[in-house]
Amino acid sequence: MILYGVGVGVGDPLDMTLKAVKTIESCEVIAVPLSAKGRSMMAYDIAKQVVDLSKKTILELDMPMVRDVNILAQHHKKAAEQVVQVLKQGKDVAFLTIGDPTVYSTYIYVHKLVVEMGYKAKIISGITSFTAAAARLGISLSEKEEMISVIPSSYETLQELPKQGTKVLMKTGKHMQKVKEKLRQEGIYEKAMMVERCGLEGEVIHKSMDTVTDEASYFSLIIIKE
Amino acid sequence: MILYGVGVGVGDPLDMTLKAVKTIESCEVIAVPLSAKGRSMMAYDIAKQVVDLSKKTILELDMPMVRDVNILAQHHKKAAEQVVQVLKQGKDVAFLTIGDPTVYSTYIYVHKLVVEMGYKAKIISGITSFTAAAARLGISLSEKEEMISVIPSSYETLQELPKQGTKVLMKTGKHMQKVKEKLRQEGIYEKAMMVERCGLEGEVIHKSMDTVTDEASYFSLIIIKE
Repeated sequence: MILYGVGVGVGDPLDMTLKAVKTIESCEVIAVPLSAKGRSMMAYDIAKQVVDLSKKTILELDMPMVRDVNILAQHHKKAAEQVVQVLKQGKDVAFLTIGDPTVYSTYIYVHKLVVEMGYKAKIISGITSFTAAAARLGISLSEKEEMISVIPSSYETLQELPKQGTKVLMKTGKHMQKVKEKLRQEGIYEKAMMVERCGLEGEVIHKSMDTVTDEASYFSLIIIKE
Repeated sequence: MILYGVGVGVGDPLDMTLKAVKTIESCEVIAVPLSAKGRSMMAYDIAKQVVDLSKKTILELDMPMVRDVNILAQHHKKAAEQVVQVLKQGKDVAFLTIGDPTVYSTYIYVHKLVVEMGYKAKIISGITSFTAAAARLGISLSEKEEMISVIPSSYETLQELPKQGTKVLMKTGKHMQKVKEKLRQEGIYEKAMMVERCGLEGEVIHKSMDTVTDEASYFSLIIIKE
């Protein structure tokens, strides 16, 4: 039996791949990570618009977003054990995840543990937030010899922005004021564009940072082209 | 009428999104970029495994991969004019492209020109080569606060590799010897993994660079995790 990590894109259900749909359809059990805020049901809500999930068994995995490494590891271990228990019953599991399972997804921790425990796990690619955002903005992320840097924009990471190429700042909503300040310091404020809640209800496309408020959504992504 | 830039993924036709399939089905005309080596028919060959293209009108766009900026610009301009001519006839055009249209794709030049000429153009996201390769390797590109750097690995670009985070070296096949040398110099040779012809016939997964020969395919992608 196999654990599938299935990327479902960032909001538009039609961004799901044929393989994602096929995989979810073929799995009896759907694993859904639950965070404290319940946000991770997003992947489920995207998938259910395309695949009938009403007859699936739902396996809820308690995976809160906490900073404490030990507590996180405990949650991941428990989630992996829950998955393995289902695999042992002869059932495939589809673990739904926003975007792509290889890009800042908690899926990978469960994947690694399940493989370590001697079971098979496969990743089904999904559309990532940054290519989806570039598509919405009608721009390319990179041309010719340009580098792309994808930066998770906690304040610490923002300290050192790469000098060259396109910069993608992920999940900037939490501290928009600091991010704007940083962009001004680096002289790249004017070049920045942002997509808020890409592919979701309430999506806003900002061709300039001037229209971005400090209350921007957590799901905000900034692209800066050189 | 609309020009659609449609990403079809890197080889596996099931990596196409529902929107890509729907868009191609709805367009009467399919634009296919032709390079001197005919390589760009790859996108067409992927799509035809899922969508019946036999009744579509094929619009061949002559887009060779040349270094000369002026010659390139001429080709792009001519391609955009060909597309606009079709749009003027009241027909939508789907321009097929490998991977995602925003990541190192020549589509974007035609997109920009068509928009400049007053017509609509939309990007339909596709699975990029680097997420597809990470999926094949069963690894994540990034966790927590890690940065991802996507580097088109011409020799010049390789001079300065970012110190932190995950590095993705694109299309390394052309000069594998130099790439290996560079990886050794930087002390990251042991951490590098490679996928050759990801999703295509003759795909090879290298968990170590030791199995990579100097004759590696042009479509080779190296991932180095810190």
